[in-house]
Formats: sequence, C-alpha cells, structure tokens
Amino acid sequence: MIKNTEGINYFFKPESIVVIGASDVAATFGTRYLQALMDIGFKGRLYAVNYKGDETLGLKIYRSVMELPGTPELACICVSAKYGPDVLRECHKKGVKAAIILSAGFSEYDEEGKRLEREIVEIAREGIRVMGPNCFGTYCPAGRVTVVPGGHFPKEAGGVALLTQSGQLAEGITAPAFGEGVRYSKVASYGNACNTNEADLLEYLMRDNETQIFSAYLEGVRDGRRFFNIARVNRGKKPIIIWKVGLTNMGAAAASSHTGSLAGDSIVWDTFFKQTGAIRVETREELIDTSIGFSCLPSGTGTGVAFISGGGAGTVIGADACEMAGMHLPSFTAGTAARLNELLPSAGTIAKNPLDIGTPHPPLEIFTKVLEALAESDGVDVIVIRRIFFAIKAARYFAGAHAPSPDQVEAIKQVPVNIKQKYNKPVVIILPEDLTGTEDIELEQERRELRDFYFRHGIPVFRSEQRAFVALGYLAGFRKDQGIHIDIPAKIDTESKGRALFLDTIKNAGSSVLDEIQCKKILKEYGLESTEPVLCKTEKDAVTAAENFGYPVVMKIISPQITHKSDIGAVKLNLKNANDVKTAFNDIMSVSREKAPNATLEGVSVQRMARPGLELVIGMTKDQQFGPMVMFGMGGTLVEVLKDISFRITPLSRQDASEMIRETKVYTLLKGYRGQASVDIPYLEELLLKVSAMVKENPEIKEMDINPLFAYEKNAVAVDARIILEAETI
Amino acid sequence: MIKNTEGINYFFKPESIVVIGASDVAATFGTRYLQALMDIGFKGRLYAVNYKGDETLGLKIYRSVMELPGTPELACICVSAKYGPDVLRECHKKGVKAAIILSAGFSEYDEEGKRLEREIVEIAREGIRVMGPNCFGTYCPAGRVTVVPGGHFPKEAGGVALLTQSGQLAEGITAPAFGEGVRYSKVASYGNACNTNEADLLEYLMRDNETQIFSAYLEGVRDGRRFFNIARVNRGKKPIIIWKVGLTNMGAAAASSHTGSLAGDSIVWDTFFKQTGAIRVETREELIDTSIGFSCLPSGTGTGVAFISGGGAGTVIGADACEMAGMHLPSFTAGTAARLNELLPSAGTIAKNPLDIGTPHPPLEIFTKVLEALAESDGVDVIVIRRIFFAIKAARYFAGAHAPSPDQVEAIKQVPVNIKQKYNKPVVIILPEDLTGTEDIELEQERRELRDFYFRHGIPVFRSEQRAFVALGYLAGFRKDQGIHIDIPAKIDTESKGRALFLDTIKNAGSSVLDEIQCKKILKEYGLESTEPVLCKTEKDAVTAAENFGYPVVMKIISPQITHKSDIGAVKLNLKNANDVKTAFNDIMSVSREKAPNATLEGVSVQRMARPGLELVIGMTKDQQFGPMVMFGMGGTLVEVLKDISFRITPLSRQDASEMIRETKVYTLLKGYRGQASVDIPYLEELLLKVSAMVKENPEIKEMDINPLFAYEKNAVAVDARIILEAETI
Repeated sequence: MIKNTEGINYFFKPESIVVIGASDVAATFGTRYLQALMDIGFKGRLYAVNYKGDETLGLKIYRSVMELPGTPELACICVSAKYGPDVLRECHKKGVKAAIILSAGFSEYDEEGKRLEREIVEIAREGIRVMGPNCFGTYCPAGRVTVVPGGHFPKEAGGVALLTQSGQLAEGITAPAFGEGVRYSKVASYGNACNTNEADLLEYLMRDNETQIFSAYLEGVRDGRRFFNIARVNRGKKPIIIWKVGLTNMGAAAASSHTGSLAGDSIVWDTFFKQTGAIRVETREELIDTSIGFSCLPSGTGTGVAFISGGGAGTVIGADACEMAGMHLPSFTAGTAARLNELLPSAGTIAKNPLDIGTPHPPLEIFTKVLEALAESDGVDVIVIRRIFFAIKAARYFAGAHAPSPDQVEAIKQVPVNIKQKYNKPVVIILPEDLTGTEDIELEQERRELRDFYFRHGIPVFRSEQRAFVALGYLAGFRKDQGIHIDIPAKIDTESKGRALFLDTIKNAGSSVLDEIQCKKILKEYGLESTEPVLCKTEKDAVTAAENFGYPVVMKIISPQITHKSDIGAVKLNLKNANDVKTAFNDIMSVSREKAPNATLEGVSVQRMARPGLELVIGMTKDQQFGPMVMFGMGGTLVEVLKDISFRITPLSRQDASEMIRETKVYTLLKGYRGQASVDIPYLEELLLKVSAMVKENPEIKEMDINPLFAYEKNAVAVDARIILEAETI
Repeated sequence: MIKNTEGINYFFKPESIVVIGASDVAATFGTRYLQALMDIGFKGRLYAVNYKGDETLGLKIYRSVMELPGTPELACICVSAKYGPDVLRECHKKGVKAAIILSAGFSEYDEEGKRLEREIVEIAREGIRVMGPNCFGTYCPAGRVTVVPGGHFPKEAGGVALLTQSGQLAEGITAPAFGEGVRYSKVASYGNACNTNEADLLEYLMRDNETQIFSAYLEGVRDGRRFFNIARVNRGKKPIIIWKVGLTNMGAAAASSHTGSLAGDSIVWDTFFKQTGAIRVETREELIDTSIGFSCLPSGTGTGVAFISGGGAGTVIGADACEMAGMHLPSFTAGTAARLNELLPSAGTIAKNPLDIGTPHPPLEIFTKVLEALAESDGVDVIVIRRIFFAIKAARYFAGAHAPSPDQVEAIKQVPVNIKQKYNKPVVIILPEDLTGTEDIELEQERRELRDFYFRHGIPVFRSEQRAFVALGYLAGFRKDQGIHIDIPAKIDTESKGRALFLDTIKNAGSSVLDEIQCKKILKEYGLESTEPVLCKTEKDAVTAAENFGYPVVMKIISPQITHKSDIGAVKLNLKNANDVKTAFNDIMSVSREKAPNATLEGVSVQRMARPGLELVIGMTKDQQFGPMVMFGMGGTLVEVLKDISFRITPLSRQDASEMIRETKVYTLLKGYRGQASVDIPYLEELLLKVSAMVKENPEIKEMDINPLFAYEKNAVAVDARIILEAETI
C-alpha cells in the first residue's frame, strides 16, 4: 500500500522510463510523449512499448512491458482506457515503481470509466504509485522529464512548483510564465488524482529542497482535510499560491441549521486561505505575477513603497493600486524632501511620495540622485518605478524631438540595477505595453528585452500598477505571517464523560435532531454553561421545576419537528409565578398542536431566565471538502439577515478563535460600545476551542447552533441550542 | 460670460489655430504642438506667435497675436504661466473664440499660480472659452487637431470620446486603445478645468452626434452636482464609462451625525454609478476593453453566453468569469445537445454549456457545425470562443505533429466571421498571449494580426476570460437599464409652511444643532409623522404634558451639547404614571448635570411612547462633490456597527427610493420575516422622497438623522431626530 509521498519522486526524477502506447505514428499521444522526453534530453534509459511492436524514433518497440530487457522506474501509459488496468498490472508485476496514466476516458467520462478507475486504484494499492489518469504528465528540468507538449520547455530549473488538475494548463500556465522569467522546479498535471492527489503532492513539494514556492491551479481537492492540515503546518515556510476556480456555481448545500445555510463554498475557501496563510490569486495573470514577485524579491520585503513616475497621473494610479494591495507610501522625511526638491525641475513637481519626477525622460544625473535619495529614505522597503523611458525606441517614439540619445537611454536603463546593487534594496519596474498596434511590434520586442534584462538582475517587471502591487502585496503579506501562525491547534481537555453521554443520547434519540434539553446536557459536559432546562410533561411538573429554579423562568415546546419555536409562539419568557407557568404550559401545548399538527410534542421545558446579555451565535457545520467548521457571530433571530459571522475549519487554534471573533462587526460591541460594558472575550475564545474539541470527539454531529448565546462581562450562557446528527447515525 | 457648452466646439473643430510659444527650437512644447498639428494634417490656417519673432516649420512667427493678419478661432498657449493672462487677454481682444492653455505652473503648483489662474478665469468670463491650463490639448480626427505627442494618431474617426484630467493619459490611454482597434471621436485633456470642466464636456459630448460612447479618466469633478445631473438625465442613451481614481486615501470627512460618518468617498461614487447607470472601470485595461466591447457589439447584447473552449480547464475558468460578470450560460436544449453529441468526438466531451470541444484544433467541419448549433440554440445572445487555434504559428507550436495545415488554419480562422454574418449573432474571441518570451515575438505579431482581422469584422478579441466577460457584463448591464431610469426625480408638494418654519427655527436656534423638539416640528411640516415632544422646564410641566398625552410616555434631556442621550442615561422609557414622570424628570436633570457638566440644559421633553416597530434610520449628509445625499437603513443605536445602509444623491427619483430600500439587509425584515408582519414599504419610499424635498428646500441643513424611525404595517413614526446646520447659518 502506497502512502502519502512515497514514490512521488519517480514522477520527477526517474532513472528510466517506458512509454506505453508509443508507435510509429508521429501524431499519437504516446509517440509525442516519447518525442518530448527526447527533446528535453531525458538522460536515463528510454523504452517504448506497443502491442503491435515495430520501432519508433530510433527505439525498438517491445510488445509488452514484460518483454523489456530492464525494469524502468516510471511507466507513462498512453493506451485506451479499457487497456489501462491490464497494462498497469503488468507494470506492477514487472517491478515498475510508478506510472503516469495520461489516457482519458476514466471517471471523468462515464460509468465504465469509473469502473476502470476503481480497478486502477486497486492495483495501485498493491504497491505502484499512480498519477492521473486523464493528465499530461510532469515537468522537471533537473530530471529532464516533461509534459506534452513540452519538449521545448527550459532545461534551466527554478524554485517554483506548479500543481494543476488540468493537463492543458500545465502548458497554459508555464508557457507565458517562462516568457516572463519564471523557472520551475517541478510541474505536475495530476488529472483525476485517483492515487496521487493534491495533498500528496503538496506534502511532497513542501519537503522538496528544489522547491521554494508552491503554486497551484485547483478545481477542487480530493482530501481537503489533509490538504488543509499540510498547508497549515507549513504556514510561513514556503509561499503557497493557489488559483482556485469553480467557486461561483456552487451554492451552500441544503442545510437545516443557520450555520449550515450560511457556509457557502466561497466562504469555506476564504476560511482555508485565512487559516493557512496561502495566497489566493484569481487569474492566470495574478498567478504568474505572484510567481515572478516571489522569484525575484526577498520574502522579507515590507509594505513601504517609494513610488516614482514621470507624470502626475501615474502617481495617482500608483497610489490607488498601492493602497488597495495593502502597501503604503511613507511620507518623506524633511531631509529627503529637501534633497528631492533641490534635484527636481521646479514646474509641476513637489517632493512627496508618490513622486512625480516631472518628465518621462529625466536626465541621467537627476534620475540617479533621485533614486539614491529614495533608497536612503526612512521606511522605504521597495522602490517602484513607473515607465521612465528605459527603451530606446519608446523614448524616441514618445519624446519626439525631446528624445534622449541612445547612449543616454542606455545609461538610464542601467540606473535601477546600480541602485539595487548599491543599496541592496528591492526595485520593481512597471513597463506598460503602451503601443499594442500590429505595426508597433518592435516596441513590444524591446519591452520584452528590457524585461529580460531587469529580470536577470533580480528586478521584476510588471505590466501595470495594479499587477505590480497585487504581487508586492502578497509578498509583504507572506512575510507578515511568518512565525505567528505556527501556533498549533489548541488542545482542550474534555471529560471523557462528554463522549459517553453523547453516544448514550444519540442511541436513544430516535430523531436526527437533538432537542434543547439533550443538547444542553452534552454542552455542559464540554464546559459550556447553559440555562439548564427540565422537561415537563404536565402543568404540575412545570410549576415544581419553576419553583426549584426560582422565578422568573422561561418555557419552550420540546419537539424534534419544531425548530423555529419562537416563530409559532411556543416560547414564553419572564414567567413570574405559578399562575404564569400554568397558563404558559397550556398556551404552548395548544399553539404547538395548532401550528404543527403533525409534530410529536415531548412536553415543555422549564429553565431559569438568563439575564439579558449580548446575543451571539456559535455554530458548526460540515463542508464536503474540509469537514467540520465552527461559526461565530452576532446571534438572535436575525443571524441569517445580518450575516455578521465568521468561520474557521476545525481544529481551531487559539489564534483562529481570536481572529474569528475580531473579524465580525459584533466585535465592536464585545469591546464595549458607547458606554456599555465589554464582554469576556477570552472566555468566548475558550468556548470556541471547547466547541472545536467537542466536534472532533463526536463526528456524528452534522450541524449545530448555539443561538442565542448570552455573553456577559464575566462569562456566557447558552440560551438555546440544537444539534443535528448525520443521517446514518440514527 | 461663457456658459456650459458654448464655444467648446472650437477646441475640436477650429477653422484656424494660432500656436503661441512656438519657436525655432524644435524641442519646445509650442513647436512640438505646431509640428503635431501639421503631422495630423490640420487643414485650416495655422499661425505661430512668439515674442522673439523669427520663423519655424515654414511659418512666419509673429511677435504678438495682435500682429496676426487674420483672427484664428483657437489659440493654443504654450508660454510660461506668468505670461498666460496677458497673452489670453490679447487673444480675447483680437477676437479669438477659444484658447487651450497647455502651460503648467498654475493652481496645481503654488500660490502665485493660483493667482494667475484666477486671473485666467476672470478673462475667460469676459467671453473667451478656455481649456486647461496644465493640459495636453485635444484630439479630434474629423477636425484634424491632436494632443502632444499625437501627430501620428489615426486620422480615422470612431465613436468613442475620452475625457482625461491628466495630459499624459490623453496619449497613455489612447495609444494602447488604438492598437486594440478603438477609434475616437474626440479626446480632451482638460487639466485644471478652470473654465471648461467635466460637466461642460460631458454635456457637450452627450449632444455630440459623432460620439456614441463616452469614456473618462477622472481624479475628481469640479461641479459634481451638474456632472451627476447630466449623467443622470442621459442614462441609457450613450454608455458613460468612467475610470475614477484617487478613491482610496479619502476617508469620510469629520462628521457629527451617523449619516455623515458613514458616507465615505467610495460610497458616494458607488451611489453616483448606481443612479446614473454609468459604468465603473478600475484599470486602464478595463477602460480599453469596455471601449472595445461597446465599439464592436450592439448594446442590446444580452447575458446569455454559449462558451466554447478546446479543453476542460478553459470551460471552468470561462464559467467562473462569466458568472462573476453577471452573465450566464444557458443550458442547451435537448435538441442542441443531441446535435452536439453527434458532432463531437466522444472522449472527454459532453455537450453542455460551457462546451469543451475536446481539442484546441478541431476539424473545420466539426468546428463550423458546432458553432452553427450554438448560434441556433435558444437563449444564446453571444458566442464566446476561447483559444481555438486560428493562428498558423500557434497551431504549429502547440499541436506539434498534430498541427493542422496552413490551409486548414486559414479556413478555421474564417469560421467565426461566417457564423457572425450568417446568424447576425455577436461573437467574441479570447486570444491569450500564450508565449511571452522575447524569442516568441512572432507569435505576438500573429496574435495582433488576428485581432485586427477579427476587429475589422466586428468581432472583439480579448486577452483573457476575465477581461472578455467584464466587458460583456458592462455591455449587457447597459442595455438592461435603458428606459427604466429615465424616471425624473419625484416632485413632492410641500407646504410652503415648512420653509417658513425652518427659517424661523434657525433664526432663534442659537446653536448649530436643532433639538428633537425643533426637528420634529419641522419634519411634521414636511409630512413626517413623529411622537410630538413637549419641552418641559419643571417637574410639574412634565406631569401636565404626560397627562395630556396619556400614559405611557418617554422623557429625554433637551440640550444642544448632548447628542447620545441614552448613553448617559438621560432617556427614560415607558413611564406609567405621574410619580414615574416626576422621578424621571429629576433623574434626567441630575444625570445630565453630572455627566455633561458644561452642557446647557434646556429642559426635558415629554412625548407619547411609540409602540414598538421595526427600527430604521433615515439620514442626510452633504458630499463635497455631489451635495446632499439621503441615507436609509437599519436603525437604532447599532447603525454604525451594522452599517446596513444605502445612500442616494438628491433629488431622489421614485426608483432611487425603491432601490435604496431594497439593497439593504433590513429589507428582508421589511418584507415580513419568519412570521412577522411586513411593514409599509410604499410609505417608506414616500418618506424618503419627502426628506429629499425637505433637504432641497432647506440648503442650510448640513446633516440630519431620523433614528430610530419606527416602521409599522401601515405607517412609520420618527422617534428621535436631529438636524445639524451649516456653520455659516447661525
């Protein structure tokens, strides 16, 4: 049985490869794959197999893997889906360590394909690592293997790894990224992920010494919980950049709790990104830009930007983009401002940050001295230069008779490099495509040459202010989180009595919804205080219970079918004497019979009336990909209207608990608002951790609401609660 | 005195031009400007003026405008700021109709510049239209005038107008747009807008027959209210596309009401876009893409998209981008699906929308028939095609041995054009830059040629899914609004008594804050019902007032300095008898003395206690650019915490009132939530219109809060209210 990362290395650095399905027809997938491996210069032994035999690309084609004179480490299988299992079985028998099944026609296609894929999974379990099916393979310049089509991919390796479910995007993302200067350690198109999934590859790449930056295009994740855990424990170590697609069409699944109905797929992924510190990009361009940023700049780059532009509009656009990305433009000190004012031609420029240097083609000396002043200025972590004319053709084109000479342009071009080296200060350049006409292709050529020149000197070049600052913002954000989030999930000691009581309760529940009385007993075992209701079947019982508590009391219907009790009038508050209690008992029973004629009425609960507190909600629901999530927010009957809530995937860390409270609007009230006392926030954090622990210990819980929870200056009390069980539990 | 659009035509289509400041030095701004006019082929009479005389570019340089043998219609002034007023005065004396002052060094620069600009404004008022100063001029291919540098701009005109405060962006936006195929009617860089501002130009361009699409780069607007009104009355006529920058750094101004503190600059502009139907773009790329979309496609294009891609990932990315932009992918009918299933090779493709055609290089016949099926399918308003290989080099590059022949590629390239023509159905193509390497520049060249080819056939080409759908979304959104918003602001008859009472009240107010009693009297005159409080100076008065109302009553401190009355305990509710009232009177006075020792205590108000209703807020504040705005939302003490509010610039139309209610979360409650009765929404709409009318009639009001307003099934009552006056009023 193959586990986790075992054998994954064979996908990237095999000693020898057999391509099964290569033939003498150049256009077949197998032959193209073989050709690509030859083109990129695979250095180990290459074999070809095809049941028809013959030869191709100078290699003998063996009729079967069994006939091979040696045992290849990796098999690349490009045969029809229906032959897939047999071929894989032979590979395993032969002693092949790993196989990439490139063929399509499996679970993504039809029922027969699903069956074939299950067979593949069974064979893989016997001890052969499988990637795919329905993928384009892997690219690893150090191992000289490549995807299809990828024979021409660079042989030079870099620090970026790329994971992509889509085969086409193995090339669709890398091809434009190569041009921008990005170099990869390892690229895997993993297709249907039947045996090697996102979590396996993430774990492998987090440990891989050749990979410094992890990037991925994800449509979904097979083992969300493991993927989450790996990303989380690696937080702050290597940047994890994810382009998650397919979010928009997936609404929240039908759910019977507040919490369930509020947790949409988009919210779940938001939560994933918050807890793992992974970077969420939204387009191919952002994925590439962010890869460029992390490839060029130290991840310690801060948020302080000195922005320089040759013209006023650039500074306004730059300042907008800068602030939107969470970066900032520190004010220049009086000393820096004085230096700049002396250097800059008077008209239209004032020495402030962002700095308008007044002309897109400043004289060499001015440009140099201005950049020196910026580099020496306090609080400047990175210098961003917008469209000064480094390009000879552009300078001529845009400046007309004003154009600097080619020598001047060449000298200006060198300045940012000199500054970067002299001060060891990150420099970023924005070079928009100014002319996009077909007849202006030479300018684009020159732009690309310039981009390459700067990239070679560790200066990333972006095409717009927005694209530059988005990448810089992610870079700065990554640094910020380092160390903080290494905080492991909090361990809360729970009495083992909690689990025992829970199991006992659900055994006798007879319904998938636990009632308020059952819930509150369980909550108590996990350390959550509540008004402890007593089930009363008669008027008399109710009065006895009330007298035991002392007045005032609250009474509610107990029925598994009645969820919104107050909506039908089956909740009575502030009952002050025995008469009130008797009347309430009868009113509640009769209104429940009337409004919910088919409901089973267990009786009426009596409980002490909690003194008014700040109304909060704590809930739990399960996501299909990531499992249990805890919710916190403003409570009461308006929870679904106000939607002032936050989520975290369990198990919660202390920091999770702290942050999820602080990102709600109700936090303003928790702190004490307009003369009101503050509530006990550390106590609430503790409660969230207890709920996280309870949820972990009792996987039979499908959804839960504690709503309202009354929060006070010193503690908090669950006023109402509901637990919904997994259907298979009862 | 020049008004509104008078004389603006001279900026774009002058019969004759004098360039003042042109010289024999090629690099000066004036000479470059003259050169640009010659390059673009200005057909009228050209003159040059410079106090030194001499000649340039084959023209005699006159020493002064007064010496010119004829009278030019337009003067372009490129002299130092300090000579600006004298030169302009001469132009006016000579009879020049309009002047563009390109020189910088005016109000954007220093105090002396501000003085010079005020002088310019004075001269302009005498009867010469002025654009600038601090700008790069205008471009109008039909008039053969151009900006600097712009001698090489296309002579071919199109339907897009561009307004830009920044001179540099007159070229910075148009240059890349020209390449993408956009053609302009008129471009104006208007600089400091001292005499010709955004509103003047918008009004002119809305009437201009040569302009079908209005676009603008705005840093701010000088006459926001007029700009708003013009945009609003033209809603749905010509698309108005605005790139508004400089939003991020401008927080809400210090304000003393809830409403004031909640209206930030970003919210104000959101409101502007909602009410005018103008399209808000956020980058240069979006501005250009949207211009392309509107230039190519009918503004009647709907939201139904058939999306086709050669590979699975493209369909996922496309579907995300489509939905995010508010477009949709209608399901294919059974008939269409059957046709498609028959056409498409089996593996990996299922006939659904978005459609994966299975290969990036489909056979000609299949491609044609698939597109025909899509064009004939129900609900498809536009066909979007992603990266099928129309390009010969790309096909070879990506398909390798699989590559179609040049003839096949040429034939495939023609298919979208044929489909568009045959079905008269909008077609859009997404052609990403797949290879961005310097060595791959030929592919970019070919991409551009293809783009030009399709653009010529009315098929817009975008670089990514996101960029295509953003543009399509705006196009569809524009159509949707047509006709709906022509709704003029509602006229509410107000008793003239309201104005008289207001003026009388503020004359005697003695404070910039009107108290609850004063406010409610004024509100009543405008038709807003309230609990009518009575000011009581003694315990005895209070009891008398209470007995007149009948119990229960509410009592509150009346003091101009105490705004958050309930926070200090100076509000007493539910007082049920004379004793309660007496105690309350004394408690309120003493707590107020204690908590606000410096406040003037006018007395205590007594009013009937309103029965509980849904707590709402209606407010008003003034924006520096757009003037009075009305706010609606969830009320009570938490209004600033929940921020469940909406704004509209006054005067409100009925549709504004309706929409601003419906965009809040509290609307769910207004409709009746979980068994609660609904409230009187038409009544609330009416209230908003009344507030809008009141605000218009009383410009002395700076801010106002009606909070809470209790809303009921049949009406609504103002429970508390405050009006803050403009400082200069008292």
